[in-house]
Amino acid sequence: MSLLLALSLICGSMLHVSFSALNNHYCVPRKTVLYQNELKSFREEGIFNYSTMLMRDDLGVLLLGAREAIYALDINNISVRKAVVYWRVTEEKQTECTYKGKHAEVECRNYIRTLHKMNDTTVYVCGTNAFSPTCDYMTFVNGQLRLEGKQEEGKGKCPFDPFQRYSSLMVGNDLYSATSINFLGSEPVVLRSSDLALRTEFKSSWLSEPNFVYMDFVRESLDSPDGDDDKVYLFFSENAMEYDFYSKVAVPRVARVCKGDMGGQRTLQRKWTSFLKARLDCSLPEPSLPPIVQDVFLLKHKDWRKSVFYAVFTPQSSLSQASAVCAYSVSAIQDIFNEGKFKTPVAVETSHVKWVMYTGEVPVPRPGACINNVARKMGMNRSLDLPDKTLQFIRDRPLMDEAVRPLTGGPLLVKRGALLTRIVVDSVLALDGQRHAVMFIGTENGYIQKAVNYHGEMFIIEEIQLYENPVPISTLRISSNKSQLYAGSEYGVVQMPLSNCSRYDTCVDCILARDPYCAWDVTIEQCTSVYSSSSSSKAAIQSLKEGDISQCPQPDPVAAVDFTLVPGNNIQLPCQLHSNLAQVLWRFSDQTLHSNNKYYIYSGGLLILSASESDAGVYTCRLSRADQQQNIQPDCGGLSFTAVCWPRSQGQHYS
Amino acid sequence: MSLLLALSLICGSMLHVSFSALNNHYCVPRKTVLYQNELKSFREEGIFNYSTMLMRDDLGVLLLGAREAIYALDINNISVRKAVVYWRVTEEKQTECTYKGKHAEVECRNYIRTLHKMNDTTVYVCGTNAFSPTCDYMTFVNGQLRLEGKQEEGKGKCPFDPFQRYSSLMVGNDLYSATSINFLGSEPVVLRSSDLALRTEFKSSWLSEPNFVYMDFVRESLDSPDGDDDKVYLFFSENAMEYDFYSKVAVPRVARVCKGDMGGQRTLQRKWTSFLKARLDCSLPEPSLPPIVQDVFLLKHKDWRKSVFYAVFTPQSSLSQASAVCAYSVSAIQDIFNEGKFKTPVAVETSHVKWVMYTGEVPVPRPGACINNVARKMGMNRSLDLPDKTLQFIRDRPLMDEAVRPLTGGPLLVKRGALLTRIVVDSVLALDGQRHAVMFIGTENGYIQKAVNYHGEMFIIEEIQLYENPVPISTLRISSNKSQLYAGSEYGVVQMPLSNCSRYDTCVDCILARDPYCAWDVTIEQCTSVYSSSSSSKAAIQSLKEGDISQCPQPDPVAAVDFTLVPGNNIQLPCQLHSNLAQVLWRFSDQTLHSNNKYYIYSGGLLILSASESDAGVYTCRLSRADQQQNIQPDCGGLSFTAVCWPRSQGQHYS
Repeated sequence: MSLLLALSLICGSMLHVSFSALNNHYCVPRKTVLYQNELKSFREEGIFNYSTMLMRDDLGVLLLGAREAIYALDINNISVRKAVVYWRVTEEKQTECTYKGKHAEVECRNYIRTLHKMNDTTVYVCGTNAFSPTCDYMTFVNGQLRLEGKQEEGKGKCPFDPFQRYSSLMVGNDLYSATSINFLGSEPVVLRSSDLALRTEFKSSWLSEPNFVYMDFVRESLDSPDGDDDKVYLFFSENAMEYDFYSKVAVPRVARVCKGDMGGQRTLQRKWTSFLKARLDCSLPEPSLPPIVQDVFLLKHKDWRKSVFYAVFTPQSSLSQASAVCAYSVSAIQDIFNEGKFKTPVAVETSHVKWVMYTGEVPVPRPGACINNVARKMGMNRSLDLPDKTLQFIRDRPLMDEAVRPLTGGPLLVKRGALLTRIVVDSVLALDGQRHAVMFIGTENGYIQKAVNYHGEMFIIEEIQLYENPVPISTLRISSNKSQLYAGSEYGVVQMPLSNCSRYDTCVDCILARDPYCAWDVTIEQCTSVYSSSSSSKAAIQSLKEGDISQCPQPDPVAAVDFTLVPGNNIQLPCQLHSNLAQVLWRFSDQTLHSNNKYYIYSGGLLILSASESDAGVYTCRLSRADQQQNIQPDCGGLSFTAVCWPRSQGQHYS
Repeated sequence: MSLLLALSLICGSMLHVSFSALNNHYCVPRKTVLYQNELKSFREEGIFNYSTMLMRDDLGVLLLGAREAIYALDINNISVRKAVVYWRVTEEKQTECTYKGKHAEVECRNYIRTLHKMNDTTVYVCGTNAFSPTCDYMTFVNGQLRLEGKQEEGKGKCPFDPFQRYSSLMVGNDLYSATSINFLGSEPVVLRSSDLALRTEFKSSWLSEPNFVYMDFVRESLDSPDGDDDKVYLFFSENAMEYDFYSKVAVPRVARVCKGDMGGQRTLQRKWTSFLKARLDCSLPEPSLPPIVQDVFLLKHKDWRKSVFYAVFTPQSSLSQASAVCAYSVSAIQDIFNEGKFKTPVAVETSHVKWVMYTGEVPVPRPGACINNVARKMGMNRSLDLPDKTLQFIRDRPLMDEAVRPLTGGPLLVKRGALLTRIVVDSVLALDGQRHAVMFIGTENGYIQKAVNYHGEMFIIEEIQLYENPVPISTLRISSNKSQLYAGSEYGVVQMPLSNCSRYDTCVDCILARDPYCAWDVTIEQCTSVYSSSSSSKAAIQSLKEGDISQCPQPDPVAAVDFTLVPGNNIQLPCQLHSNLAQVLWRFSDQTLHSNNKYYIYSGGLLILSASESDAGVYTCRLSRADQQQNIQPDCGGLSFTAVCWPRSQGQHYS
């Protein structure tokens, strides 16, 4: 029992895993950063559903709507609560709601779903209010949140059901909302609440069991040679009308309306004359039912034509686990709506309707178009002036024939595993003077995937676990000014910096991270933010597209460590990976080791089970760097008999 | 270093995992039997693609077609080769094939694809013969295989492409085949090679890029009150014509022709007048593209109406990994073809065609029907006598409106993970006098899944690894007489017994296995075959539907074992599971242990990493039996301070 034998361990690196093989794995994040307690977060005991956020950079606060509470949190540190106001449901309302068959403690509460800026001090707030949606005005003055108690009717502005997806948007003082207008949630509507309220027709060709996810505004009137109007874009999914299949099929859509729309005079009175919709194409490399849009982010450009919608898609069947991100330029969507063909319904054998491309004559002014110079020349200055022929056409044919194709032809990112839920995008100026769109994507299990697409190559820089338990991320907001991300869920909000360059502790690690926020500062020998003043571009190294580490200084050779072997015991030899893309290769007396009933190879090292005398000797742990294409020499010199690697503490040379 | 402390280990069983939760896991096999070298197998060095089999119980051999070789193997032990004949491609043929752009060493070889019995001594053989399909006659006389060298044209009987799926069948001396008739593989045909050869029309409404998988014969003329004919059934997938979708969609089909069909006189001359097809429905619990049929097995009943086709389906997208088995009764298929409505094409807006239900008048005799008493009464005794109206109708409308529904309304089995490839089914008479259909399903990674469906409950008795490397199983044959299964692959053939009751070493294990082939013999205290003469039903226990182990004798309490703890070392405490459905729960000083950086729980036991003095004490390993619904008391008595479990050797009490 007391016979002690020596065994030892050497580490090195090997470099022959091809890069292309990894792309087939549907984007393995290079680093996995597990949950850390030091992340700034906010939650209040007994309060749930932290799902509605309004960033007020101007006031230095993040307004946060939860169940029966609204908070003003310090935008720099959300764990600092500056103010709170509670908006609880009345006992009467709750009882009424319970009578209608809803769950008292879950559904018959007031979930804050709407927070929109009205002016510098006032915010418009709506809540589900026990299946009786209600809106109010809230002020933030002298560090205090106060509700005015106006109790405006919220039907159509905010959903009845706290768990139904919906979207809304404030443009000027007009509230655009896409939700259900009835208790049962069966009457969908896209509504503008303003002096001249407008809504969609209640026809299944306009909206068929839709699931609304996102709305945004594009100021297209700016520099428009056609005298075009501003637009409100809406993203949703609904039952396909254009397919004929053995089961219901959902399709992702983009729709838009014109800001200046006033409805028709006789036809489409108080209805949108400019509601047009098209299918969104985000085809996966495999045949599948159309993936469904879950969230969208508009990355704005000062030229609105170059603004881009980034959209997250998930499968409509839980048999599949591949999520995707597709990007659509505003100008591509505009082209489809302004110039594309329409679809038209055709009766087949009396009982069937098939939607095919409309090939007949299209009336002038073009159906669904905003009032523009063409219309104005014809003496039509408001949608009220549009002829019945144009209005009837669009009432019966709101769907475009062609789908909107993604900017890059296909998805920017395809990822298997935990589904993606929400997305925000930041535009980062790298050292080479180029801008890169960095995507921060929430998942259903509480992670953020930080990803970029370098010239068609998908790359996930890191995945960061924000929640200890696997809770879905239900809201994401970004502050580019503060370089912070805010992620809401059922159980709280977490704040994280957009980058943490100090996580990359060696030059090689810093370069291979390919993080556009970070560069290796040769002077101070640290991985630092490209925004930090100290790192002038001369002293800083970055290699985003290639991950070229040849400019990094050669690392020191690795010291060796002895282990003592007790026969019959299990020996643990540590060798930690810095990257999920790297692979470990264990060798012992010229043999490559594999996990079996003798050895167990895991992420932290090697276990030798029931060691015997014959196990004594030199063990080497070599890393193959799959995340770099260029070869470098192994870091550990000769195979010293007593060498061992402790990469976590020493290793400037792991990837 | 030499401080030794004691720790010990106790095992027990816990019983609170609900059964329903496991069904959601899409059928976890109860036992996993890993690859064992002692399985009987056959392969010859340098020969590949062991994919064609003909069982000759009468001759005691399994005829096996591979690339350029045909073997006669002992049906009792396939590792015994009784005879072999080689049929190599000529150099001239190979050169010619290479000129046409095919790969000399892969495609330009002779793959034996067809083996059919002609009479007691003669077998009809076809091979791809370097993309120039050729057939021949082979005799097995005096223990010798001999090819006659007739070199018949094999076009339409056997595919050109060795890797294209196809099916064929010998009925009497007529060869029915479903394959491509041209070099490019683009002209599909269902052919009868006989004195009066018949084939399908070359129209996409008959066959659209089909993938043929299976053919079988049903003697429906037997006791037919309508004077109906015998039928040949064909299973395949093809492009859907009835759906209108954003991409091509494949659908699974069953088609049939009548044995007595002679084609039409003017219309459909030398073409089938009885080719009818219908969609096969095998809907998964989730929305998806239609799953695609991969293999079929006809479980014959002496009343052909009760014969059942068992079909394996896999997703048409590799994004999904759920395979399924659906069963269809011959009578259900017959009902659709004999009485169902037809689909008819309707032109929509000139450029589109939509297939809808035909509601007009159907001519008499019914289009696609075999010559039966109705036709005979009208003076039509051969298909040649059928009127043009009937023939034109069926030429333009071969598709039935309704799909064939599975016998049980939905799949018998749904399984995630490695795709299912092939299926055979055995009908087993259990002790209770009932027959159970036991499915043996091959997978793409070299396993056999042995599964039953007990009154709607899916249950996989075991999965058996037949190939050490993950190779797809490409052929399965069963001999119920010999109780043996034969599985072919690219690299060889493996034989396995349909059951191995001795694998269940305790009464509880034998009962919980719910294997209809096995029962616990109380007299000899062994799990034995229900077919073995020794186990009379009185002395034998079986509980297939309930898995009720209350009749089993109480097991002995478990002895305990001491372990010695060396601080800083890793300790391995073994506790092996007998069933994948059981779960293990480790406890130490009133704490439940989980895998983390201190403990590693794996299938063989618990590892304590870098043990310290505080780790000394009593460890218990309890098993929760998820595969039984009835609770029993834990097997290990009190928590003895020095108890330990060695379930593999002692444990009569694990599941």
